[in-house]
Amino acid sequence: MFILVNLKAYPCDPIAVAKAAKEVADESGVRIAVSPQASQISAVADTGVETWAQHVSPNQYGSFTGSTLAEAAADAGAVGTLINHSENRRKLADIDASVRAAERADLETCVCANNPRQTAAAAALGPDSVAVEPPELIGGDVSVASGDPDIVTDAVAAAQEVDESVDVYCGAGVSTGEDVTAAQELGAEGILLASGVAKADDPKEALEDLVSDL
Amino acid sequence: MFILVNLKAYPCDPIAVAKAAKEVADESGVRIAVSPQASQISAVADTGVETWAQHVSPNQYGSFTGSTLAEAAADAGAVGTLINHSENRRKLADIDASVRAAERADLETCVCANNPRQTAAAAALGPDSVAVEPPELIGGDVSVASGDPDIVTDAVAAAQEVDESVDVYCGAGVSTGEDVTAAQELGAEGILLASGVAKADDPKEALEDLVSDL
Amino acid sequence: MFILVNLKAYPCDPIAVAKAAKEVADESGVRIAVSPQASQISAVADTGVETWAQHVSPNQYGSFTGSTLAEAAADAGAVGTLINHSENRRKLADIDASVRAAERADLETCVCANNPRQTAAAAALGPDSVAVEPPELIGGDVSVASGDPDIVTDAVAAAQEVDESVDVYCGAGVSTGEDVTAAQELGAEGILLASGVAKADDPKEALEDLVSDL
Amino acid sequence: MFILVNLKAYPCDPIAVAKAAKEVADESGVRIAVSPQASQISAVADTGVETWAQHVSPNQYGSFTGSTLAEAAADAGAVGTLINHSENRRKLADIDASVRAAERADLETCVCANNPRQTAAAAALGPDSVAVEPPELIGGDVSVASGDPDIVTDAVAAAQEVDESVDVYCGAGVSTGEDVTAAQELGAEGILLASGVAKADDPKEALEDLVSDL
Repeated sequence: MFILVNLKAYPCDPIAVAKAAKEVADESGVRIAVSPQASQISAVADTGVETWAQHVSPNQYGSFTGSTLAEAAADAGAVGTLINHSENRRKLADIDASVRAAERADLETCVCANNPRQTAAAAALGPDSVAVEPPELIGGDVSVASGDPDIVTDAVAAAQEVDESVDVYCGAGVSTGEDVTAAQELGAEGILLASGVAKADDPKEALEDLVSDL
Repeated sequence: MFILVNLKAYPCDPIAVAKAAKEVADESGVRIAVSPQASQISAVADTGVETWAQHVSPNQYGSFTGSTLAEAAADAGAVGTLINHSENRRKLADIDASVRAAERADLETCVCANNPRQTAAAAALGPDSVAVEPPELIGGDVSVASGDPDIVTDAVAAAQEVDESVDVYCGAGVSTGEDVTAAQELGAEGILLASGVAKADDPKEALEDLVSDL
Repeated sequence: MFILVNLKAYPCDPIAVAKAAKEVADESGVRIAVSPQASQISAVADTGVETWAQHVSPNQYGSFTGSTLAEAAADAGAVGTLINHSENRRKLADIDASVRAAERADLETCVCANNPRQTAAAAALGPDSVAVEPPELIGGDVSVASGDPDIVTDAVAAAQEVDESVDVYCGAGVSTGEDVTAAQELGAEGILLASGVAKADDPKEALEDLVSDL
Repeated sequence: MFILVNLKAYPCDPIAVAKAAKEVADESGVRIAVSPQASQISAVADTGVETWAQHVSPNQYGSFTGSTLAEAAADAGAVGTLINHSENRRKLADIDASVRAAERADLETCVCANNPRQTAAAAALGPDSVAVEPPELIGGDVSVASGDPDIVTDAVAAAQEVDESVDVYCGAGVSTGEDVTAAQELGAEGILLASGVAKADDPKEALEDLVSDL
């Protein structure tokens, strides 16, 4: 399982979370990455933790003021990127171009999607993975296993039918070690988390709980 | 073959084009539709020609000022709609929701896409058809057959692999009867046209040429 | 006072509301307009009521699929248009271009704004009027006079300072005849209404109440 | 005069340009800042040069994946930010909110605008400065003085009329020391530059030429 901690625009200490993630990854052997604001990528990457961008723009080098150039994110230390997160929905053509931009910069790609149909659409664009984020689970206290397990199994099936090489991550409804195991049993190869770790009093403890059953 | 004449925001007489399309459709037996500005749907539909919207919004009934409600387009006389035209690119989640909105209003749906990859993604959203519009052919004088025939055959194959029930239309590079036949031979079930008919001195003559080899 | 009834994407009968508005305008001498979906402009204008578009695009004639061409809205019978409604926020440069597009098509223009600062900014773009829509009043039951009267007087002052010829309308918090009078006393030259009329069991009665104190 | 070098998404070495800018600023006493990609802010700020973000999002702390949080840009070392650059046009309400977000993070603000009318609108939102970028001058070889000097003087007048405390910068058409002096004589308090410095073989030499007449 892959655990990706999305720091969003939270008022957390990104370095503290990064260090905790690095320690738990080293101790448990579980792959854990942290995704900070673009301006914090280099500081987070300096901790040694696997670092992801929260978004990259579809453009290449050129006159694109205010864009998030994939190559610049990679130069700062990112090795992967989210694309089309539910808080950052993008045009179909731009998702396609952002996946290509990330590939050029050697960034691993995870495209987010709302439901099994959009998961299949995202998979058709050839990213490394798709994260399915059921709107009813985002930011809530309902876990994916108890809330709507079918959406994960359906998303896995939908992605597989389009492209077997695309992994499916569970993008919402995971906050405990049990949820991680439940997502894994539903066919997810990874999970996206945010406040459960980023806003935890003790991020390291939160991460240790998450990997405890793996 | 299905011929869809997109009037865009051209300074043409939509009624004159609609009447010409209606006549050629009746005389040739070829299915021809006209897609005018939203405010012209009812006048165009009154001619008896098959009428399509150029876009419908993802929303349902409600507080959505300035939206293009699918039900309102249908009430005015539209029976189908383009979605995500290259001049009106939309977010992945909104394309999905617009296809659903059109279905609720009994509108046939054609989602536009740039390349075979996006064609597969669009097909995964379950529209009736996908129109592939290679950027290099849009608005130009290069015909699809001479310019880049592979993009059409690849788009047809990509859509078929995702969903066999989704037709593929050729969304650019068609301006003569020969181009229509060429697109048909490449596997396209329809074509999108715009200025070739809408800006023609004699739209009826232009349409007669287009259907001459069918 | 000018009363503009915005039908949004409501499941109402636009013709019934239009007829009611026409009758009350004729009987009371108060200027009343109705703003329907683009596809309903011609049917609404056919009732003889003053008809407004809910939005016009910044573009002129050309290759703009899915746009709302100002000239096409005018041809269908619109004589005015909202721009940048809170449900349809637009880029600064596009608001500027939409005001110019509307002017070319002889459409009266009302640009919506959230607060006095944005009201001044909108006024600087030279529309005929600006409607201030305090977010806290939109869609609620709080009236502008009781809720936050300062925002209207401040908006009027802000617009006047930039351009004395720009009228200020009250874009939320008005549902009774008393509210209309209160808005007028605060300096508003018009009001925007939506559900209070569009969703009323008897739209004519609702409008008669609104103009009763004028 | 204030000289702001916008590195856009150019394939330049941001550190080399930053060091050159720092040296020329120190030697000449002219205020010079560099605006890199968000992911490069901390590295650029570490050179000691005044560092600006290319954009900040309208949001505050919270669930805003892929945003450019003003506070995070400031923490990384930025002291100012562009907003609404012509390559990154924003909604009126979002420009307003981005100026507020930047203020909360103690970032100086420069809102970009296309013409005198939009300059006045931008000034009404209360930024520290507005940069007028005439579309016909962007990326071209025409200098502002020879091309269309009126647009700068008109923009200065328009901004002054709305708010005397808002400076106007010249956002295009400046590539030589003569252009800088010309812009200054037209009333501009600063200039925005991009490729002329960022893509120069010798950025320091380019900057030395720009400040030579000040």
